[in-house]
Amino acid sequence: MSNFSWEEFFRLPPEQKAPHFQRNGRPYHALIAQQFERPFLDRLCELATRTRRIAKTRGGRLFLQDLLSDKRAMLYFAQPSTRTFLSFYAACQIVGLQPAEVRDTNTSSELKGESPEDSVRTFSSYFDVIIMRHPVGGFAEKIAWMLSNTERTVPVINAGSGKDQHPTQALLDIYTLQRSFEERGGIEGKHVVFVGDLARGRTVRSLSWLLKLYPGVRQTFVAPAALQIGEDVLDSLRRAGVAFECTDDFEAAVPQADAIYMTRIQDEWDTAKESAALDTSRFKFTAAHLARLKPDAILMHPLPRRDEIAPACDADPRAMYWRQVRNGMWIRAALLLVIFDRDVEVDRYYEDLTR
Amino acid sequence: MSNFSWEEFFRLPPEQKAPHFQRNGRPYHALIAQQFERPFLDRLCELATRTRRIAKTRGGRLFLQDLLSDKRAMLYFAQPSTRTFLSFYAACQIVGLQPAEVRDTNTSSELKGESPEDSVRTFSSYFDVIIMRHPVGGFAEKIAWMLSNTERTVPVINAGSGKDQHPTQALLDIYTLQRSFEERGGIEGKHVVFVGDLARGRTVRSLSWLLKLYPGVRQTFVAPAALQIGEDVLDSLRRAGVAFECTDDFEAAVPQADAIYMTRIQDEWDTAKESAALDTSRFKFTAAHLARLKPDAILMHPLPRRDEIAPACDADPRAMYWRQVRNGMWIRAALLLVIFDRDVEVDRYYEDLTR
Amino acid sequence: MSNFSWEEFFRLPPEQKAPHFQRNGRPYHALIAQQFERPFLDRLCELATRTRRIAKTRGGRLFLQDLLSDKRAMLYFAQPSTRTFLSFYAACQIVGLQPAEVRDTNTSSELKGESPEDSVRTFSSYFDVIIMRHPVGGFAEKIAWMLSNTERTVPVINAGSGKDQHPTQALLDIYTLQRSFEERGGIEGKHVVFVGDLARGRTVRSLSWLLKLYPGVRQTFVAPAALQIGEDVLDSLRRAGVAFECTDDFEAAVPQADAIYMTRIQDEWDTAKESAALDTSRFKFTAAHLARLKPDAILMHPLPRRDEIAPACDADPRAMYWRQVRNGMWIRAALLLVIFDRDVEVDRYYEDLTR
Repeated sequence: MSNFSWEEFFRLPPEQKAPHFQRNGRPYHALIAQQFERPFLDRLCELATRTRRIAKTRGGRLFLQDLLSDKRAMLYFAQPSTRTFLSFYAACQIVGLQPAEVRDTNTSSELKGESPEDSVRTFSSYFDVIIMRHPVGGFAEKIAWMLSNTERTVPVINAGSGKDQHPTQALLDIYTLQRSFEERGGIEGKHVVFVGDLARGRTVRSLSWLLKLYPGVRQTFVAPAALQIGEDVLDSLRRAGVAFECTDDFEAAVPQADAIYMTRIQDEWDTAKESAALDTSRFKFTAAHLARLKPDAILMHPLPRRDEIAPACDADPRAMYWRQVRNGMWIRAALLLVIFDRDVEVDRYYEDLTR
Repeated sequence: MSNFSWEEFFRLPPEQKAPHFQRNGRPYHALIAQQFERPFLDRLCELATRTRRIAKTRGGRLFLQDLLSDKRAMLYFAQPSTRTFLSFYAACQIVGLQPAEVRDTNTSSELKGESPEDSVRTFSSYFDVIIMRHPVGGFAEKIAWMLSNTERTVPVINAGSGKDQHPTQALLDIYTLQRSFEERGGIEGKHVVFVGDLARGRTVRSLSWLLKLYPGVRQTFVAPAALQIGEDVLDSLRRAGVAFECTDDFEAAVPQADAIYMTRIQDEWDTAKESAALDTSRFKFTAAHLARLKPDAILMHPLPRRDEIAPACDADPRAMYWRQVRNGMWIRAALLLVIFDRDVEVDRYYEDLTR
Repeated sequence: MSNFSWEEFFRLPPEQKAPHFQRNGRPYHALIAQQFERPFLDRLCELATRTRRIAKTRGGRLFLQDLLSDKRAMLYFAQPSTRTFLSFYAACQIVGLQPAEVRDTNTSSELKGESPEDSVRTFSSYFDVIIMRHPVGGFAEKIAWMLSNTERTVPVINAGSGKDQHPTQALLDIYTLQRSFEERGGIEGKHVVFVGDLARGRTVRSLSWLLKLYPGVRQTFVAPAALQIGEDVLDSLRRAGVAFECTDDFEAAVPQADAIYMTRIQDEWDTAKESAALDTSRFKFTAAHLARLKPDAILMHPLPRRDEIAPACDADPRAMYWRQVRNGMWIRAALLLVIFDRDVEVDRYYEDLTR
């Protein structure tokens, strides 16, 4: 990407950016959900499952910890997110990557007048990978671009930037669907129902995009009109020939779903608190809905939740949101192994184990 | 404890709660001082001493670090306490437990409207044990109860919750007494004098309870009337047949004590700063008191101190408060080993060492 | 130093303090730039280079990590400095020292009325070395002095205290000069030009002092009159017979320099923002200056920068400030190895490697 100015690069469509985030045909940076292709998703899910199974024994855990034990990760969280932070932190620990953290929203250097780019370049000097969350959209990409113009490039993993991208959340959602439907023919042909704040949720946008890679998946978007999914997402589905529907009838959608993906009204993005005026009471999953959900459907939520899903649903085996949390840790561990090219050793260990 | 509703469980007397915190006859959670019985205290002190001695060589330190190296601990400190945090952090490092930390009083998820229970359940998903400090009394117990109703329970260690419980402080105080009186027949039969803010200090309440397990211990409570120890504590001593005395005569108590336990006026709990009006000047240990203290008595303080003990006393061999700090680290390391059932390996190593 | 009262000790001239910071002829504490002598600087640079080269392979990195793996470091940063913090943190990780951190400006104990000395003594109880940054000048020295009066002394490394001392910054500057001039006869005889805020920059003061240890080095100080270097520094150069010059003619200095050391106006120390009134526009290094810089000169900056050096200079091979950042990590790793007396093992490994 160093052949472009930053502005030129940033304006490229995702498909044209993606190759710049690869090295030797596999992700080097993980910056946008659109960079992931189907073979990679399948591979990453397989690797996450192998890692998870290997980790069931002390011997396996020590094996995994050894893999990246000579590397150091910087978790730079300029925007608070304890959940994502801890998930990455634990993922680093699983594969032995030694973590260091910056969780200040105002780092001291910026107080001294340093540019954010200089700050991150400095921090990157000490580490082998940067995992970063930042309030500004595109910031993680900008850092990857900037480092590609220096003598010392390191992989950049986007742990959420601005309103648009949180690619590892999309990966964990795919992994959860893949695990849940593993013995039912996979994700292909399933009906996924998205519910809630679809206008602003970057999670839904990314997952919708990736589901296009699975033939026969039907997508339904359930939201009040003001929070319905963007036309750009629908255009992209149309171009890909994906069957979809937009509705505000949650009750009708529940019994048809193979997966229900509930989301939270993201009013922390609001300045005027306009969402308070919206009636979202019809878009909540209650204990009563459990009876109308297919016996083999699953109920997902990226968390944190408010009252979109009643806690009384938590014990139902179809409630998958707590498992989603754990899946995030495993898929992130798998991603780190791929980025540092140590996944083949996991395969070898796993094959010995299952021989 | 999953057979109870939370409210039912919380109202149980400590003795009835205790068995629910055990697994296979040993602590699984460490939540309240009242759950610890005499054989456990003796065992934990022995284990702390063995761990401490093993740690004197590089080989021993590497042995200890290996014991829990495949496990991860979450230190969730919703209430600031640098001292207790670092003590647990170092204890984790000694036994190889990989620590991660949340030290924000406001975690980002709570800003997004998540319940504290959901937050902690999420964080617990990534780790093998939770060490938590929280301003709300009973919160650590509530988390242990909640997790017992899920598929993935992990041990919960209470690092201080509300005004009532700080069980590992009580353990380190017992360990300090045990070490100090090891060659004088143990804690049995000694005279322990508590001084200062006895009404509010959870430390004193817990230690007083545990001392009942040591026959012949006499307890004296020295405080101005407004800060004297609670009637509930005295009732409990009466029922156990423990000899005790309440007084405001510090000068008379000093020469009689085998152990003096000084405490700080805890006015950070005050809203109206009522303690400022109290004259506490008669309840301070000065350099002049050293001459009146028994030659083999010990002087303790849970720290932080203000002016309850003059810094001029620090160099006296009877001043035990700095050693108390180190003892806290060792006893916490021992507790972690017990919870994860790795203590037998310490015994084996120690026996080889001393053979 | 325990033979002195703190006040007596603090007033000693640096040369008389230095021996108290040594053990067995090598640094035990690293507190002031003036404690370092020439043979030590040469040794430390050699060790940093060896460590850096060993770290190029996975085997080498694992070797280094093993060296201090049984030790724990406390990074106590009472004053924010993400850059220095991360540099030390990574240095600890390189040599396997297990880090723990306190990055609050207000620790909880101080809220409870504890003295800063008690706080640090408590924290030091759990660790094998303290790396500390503090806003109060002399604080790190005071802690070292205080601990020397206790049963348990640990090494103290000053990571910046007050306006005067930041000794490891001086070490990394020396290392950068040494590496850059390695094949041109070393630092001896070179012309070093300091530019910018020389009145307040502790970096310049320390580096100027250490350069006296290298025969034939010429020092030029370029600053507006109000920010010119202190008379005490010049006196010290005069006594040492060092050739120096003070000027405000930046343009004339550029082509003569072997090393240009740019600095930032440190107005975060200002209360009245007096520096805003100063015209500093003539003391900036722009892309146009590159043409007038000697082909083998180097351009340094301690960072963070504002606009003292144009980002367009970053890609020039003579721009050494990003390498300075990495050098800081290596020299700090080397310092930790010396303090814990594990440097001989690095020599052995290196000799095997280069045999």
